[in-house]
Amino acid sequence: IASSGGGSGGDGWWQKTSVGGYGEVHYNGGDTDEVDIHRFVLFINHEFNDKVRFFSELEVEHGVAGEGQNGEVEVEQAFVEIDVAEHHSVTAGLQLVPVGILNITHEPPTFYGVERNNVEVNIIPTTWWEAGIGAHGELGSGFAYSAFVHSGLRVPTTGANAFRIRNGRQKVSEAKAKDGAVTTQLTYSGIPGVQFGVTGQYQSDLTQGEGEKTSATLFEAHVDSSFAFGPGSIGFRALAARWDLDSNAAEAIGRDEQYGWYIEPSYRFPVWYGDLGFFARYSEWDNSAGGGADSEFSQTQIGANYWPVEDVVFKLDYQFDDAPAGGTEDDRLNVGVGFQF
Amino acid sequence: IASSGGGSGGDGWWQKTSVGGYGEVHYNGGDTDEVDIHRFVLFINHEFNDKVRFFSELEVEHGVAGEGQNGEVEVEQAFVEIDVAEHHSVTAGLQLVPVGILNITHEPPTFYGVERNNVEVNIIPTTWWEAGIGAHGELGSGFAYSAFVHSGLRVPTTGANAFRIRNGRQKVSEAKAKDGAVTTQLTYSGIPGVQFGVTGQYQSDLTQGEGEKTSATLFEAHVDSSFAFGPGSIGFRALAARWDLDSNAAEAIGRDEQYGWYIEPSYRFPVWYGDLGFFARYSEWDNSAGGGADSEFSQTQIGANYWPVEDVVFKLDYQFDDAPAGGTEDDRLNVGVGFQF
Amino acid sequence: IASSGGGSGGDGWWQKTSVGGYGEVHYNGGDTDEVDIHRFVLFINHEFNDKVRFFSELEVEHGVAGEGQNGEVEVEQAFVEIDVAEHHSVTAGLQLVPVGILNITHEPPTFYGVERNNVEVNIIPTTWWEAGIGAHGELGSGFAYSAFVHSGLRVPTTGANAFRIRNGRQKVSEAKAKDGAVTTQLTYSGIPGVQFGVTGQYQSDLTQGEGEKTSATLFEAHVDSSFAFGPGSIGFRALAARWDLDSNAAEAIGRDEQYGWYIEPSYRFPVWYGDLGFFARYSEWDNSAGGGADSEFSQTQIGANYWPVEDVVFKLDYQFDDAPAGGTEDDRLNVGVGFQF
Repeated sequence: IASSGGGSGGDGWWQKTSVGGYGEVHYNGGDTDEVDIHRFVLFINHEFNDKVRFFSELEVEHGVAGEGQNGEVEVEQAFVEIDVAEHHSVTAGLQLVPVGILNITHEPPTFYGVERNNVEVNIIPTTWWEAGIGAHGELGSGFAYSAFVHSGLRVPTTGANAFRIRNGRQKVSEAKAKDGAVTTQLTYSGIPGVQFGVTGQYQSDLTQGEGEKTSATLFEAHVDSSFAFGPGSIGFRALAARWDLDSNAAEAIGRDEQYGWYIEPSYRFPVWYGDLGFFARYSEWDNSAGGGADSEFSQTQIGANYWPVEDVVFKLDYQFDDAPAGGTEDDRLNVGVGFQF
Repeated sequence: IASSGGGSGGDGWWQKTSVGGYGEVHYNGGDTDEVDIHRFVLFINHEFNDKVRFFSELEVEHGVAGEGQNGEVEVEQAFVEIDVAEHHSVTAGLQLVPVGILNITHEPPTFYGVERNNVEVNIIPTTWWEAGIGAHGELGSGFAYSAFVHSGLRVPTTGANAFRIRNGRQKVSEAKAKDGAVTTQLTYSGIPGVQFGVTGQYQSDLTQGEGEKTSATLFEAHVDSSFAFGPGSIGFRALAARWDLDSNAAEAIGRDEQYGWYIEPSYRFPVWYGDLGFFARYSEWDNSAGGGADSEFSQTQIGANYWPVEDVVFKLDYQFDDAPAGGTEDDRLNVGVGFQF
Repeated sequence: IASSGGGSGGDGWWQKTSVGGYGEVHYNGGDTDEVDIHRFVLFINHEFNDKVRFFSELEVEHGVAGEGQNGEVEVEQAFVEIDVAEHHSVTAGLQLVPVGILNITHEPPTFYGVERNNVEVNIIPTTWWEAGIGAHGELGSGFAYSAFVHSGLRVPTTGANAFRIRNGRQKVSEAKAKDGAVTTQLTYSGIPGVQFGVTGQYQSDLTQGEGEKTSATLFEAHVDSSFAFGPGSIGFRALAARWDLDSNAAEAIGRDEQYGWYIEPSYRFPVWYGDLGFFARYSEWDNSAGGGADSEFSQTQIGANYWPVEDVVFKLDYQFDDAPAGGTEDDRLNVGVGFQF
């Protein structure tokens, strides 16, 4: 029977298969004025043997999914990893695109701010997963690489979201496969407490043959660092990402250039029970940077994280929005609780 | 990698994280004449340390969720609990509202009747969860308390369901947060085999500012008891709940008063393999009790539960409906199988 | 608290409850030209004691489920099994209908071909589950039986899919219960490496009283065998299934007879790391076989499976379609990765 082929075997399933998860509940003030279980996620992983492993991530967004509901259920990772040499592996299946900081590591206790930063939402469309084949490994001296040949984006070609990167995600759900993409990432962590990363991506046609052929190149670079200072540690994150789209259709509406960047200094220190941290973040992003009009958004945030234990976090921040003419500003307080296990 | 941050760590994840669940498959006769997997639920819990814990409940209703389908996937609990003193804890996140019997304990083997009683569906909108901050503890001598400041209801203000409590649930899915609510519960279990509970709730505007300001007060009381008698034990449950809504709009359609109550005597005893139990239940409820017309529903049920083991139950009952003029009566047989683990 | 009734108990939950799963990511070439996470499935099983068990299967199809999305979340199994004598058990709840090869065992590493064969999609509507009561056991000398009284199909009575079997699945989601069905299966595995199976099903009205009363009989037979030969083993699968529907409405559109069959020889052998296998499959199926026009589809497939470990498979095949006039042919390459644990 299929159902008994799974976990009901002999002793020890739990030593091969593991269950974890993370999630976050948010309050957003201002004009938004909402409370939401933004996401709740399960990890289900398995070790077939010491060379072959499986990873998966199953997510419920906004708490309720179904006809007429706000939320969705999504399989965001489901891939097999096979070690092919010491420090080198290949992967196959549904995987996170190796770009930026949050797309790979997005459990709430690992970052500041109730909501994810806008650059890694609007320019790098986090959470961004594709199906394909990857190669990953270490090159020595602190260098590591990922190369990923994968399914591509499929942007709308008309309407307000035409050629907008985030709207091009197909989520590997009966995704058009006419044009794939290739992504390579190089990271360097040779200096203790610091990680540098650079990523490049190329896709030959973002429209999947449904509009004017539009090739696209993404370039991204980031640093994520932490240094002991006084009773705690200073943190610093910075990231910049830029898309170049090559077609008359994209250029005509200024979507041939889309970019963003942010810097985020922080300080974290132990308190009576757990840790407390403060941060500030300044970000800019523009999905129509190729046009003549002012279309750049920016945001300044200040806030705090409190970790009673390492894997639970309470968050509070205030955001100051600066939108171009016609854009929406919603200066507001955000409060959240997050966890991972 | 995010996916490996979860369960795939070293030995022992299973000693911190646990998986359980419950579910029920129903046949409803009469005019309904349906068979349905009413719900299937997973519990995923985690202990961060001996003071900090996480609880969650992930549910699939009606078996299939998606565009054009009957069912839904719902996150019904996802909260962190932190012990702040011996016998006292605080909670944060998505939690069950502490009211009544079934809203807190609704695993099928714990109650009689294939379907949940109508009072704890139409007056107390079970399963009812909200996001917020709670305080819970024991006061000694058998007294315990819960206090919960949380997101509020948002009832429709027009149509057939205007001001109907059950239709006000936002399920913490991008829920309007203009008006919150506060709930306090006191329970007494100082007499062996008996639990008394009383709950009060107040919300300043059930419409979330979208209609005439309508404050609401809920008052609920119940008893759940079991006494050894002969070879088995006599059970007795009773519950009453009442809402008062204060606005002209609610009063105009009789929805300013909504109440219900039920009594449920039962007898459970061991048989050759497992336990058998019989019950009767009489319930009344009225969601338009403030109006002049007869709008009260009542139902009489008799039936049996058979537990082959403590956590599996087979159920059978017959319901006799008594509806006001224009209401639907569906006298029918119900059959079910339920389980928890 | 409901949430703590589950897995957060004392030591040892993992010795009673188990978690497993399977899934597959596909690329389909030709005119389809898609990449898709076709399915991702969790098994959650529990042993109440050494006589009483629970099995469940929770599936996400096409990766994303929600309003406006392609996918679905489905509970495909959720039943209790109770041993009533040595080698004999009864089951209650949501169960797979015991028919054919793939409906019971459909984890990707157990079969050849990226997609499931068309006979066990269009004639036997795999995955096909119903709610009901079953009896299962062994009769000695290699014979085993299943008998299942269960909820029935509800076929459309108008439109292009009128009386088409696959469109009759109600998936136990608020399923009409006016007419149930009964299925019996007998299998024989007395010859090492060979399993024979025959199944019969009867339902008195496929329309659930919504059209002309249409009784239906299904008859199915299959063989699944494997013999050592040279360095590896020869495999052979064959299956035939046929529906007879009895009504003027079904006969008028040729849907009174629907049948299909396939044969699938294969050869699997060890390579340097893991196993490699080749297969060919020829299948025919016809959902309008009672009509005068040519309505028979056939397909020839050849391909390979590579198993780096027993429970992970990479698949590649090419299909040659032969459709009747007006039908769709899509000769194409299919590539997939699948896993179970």
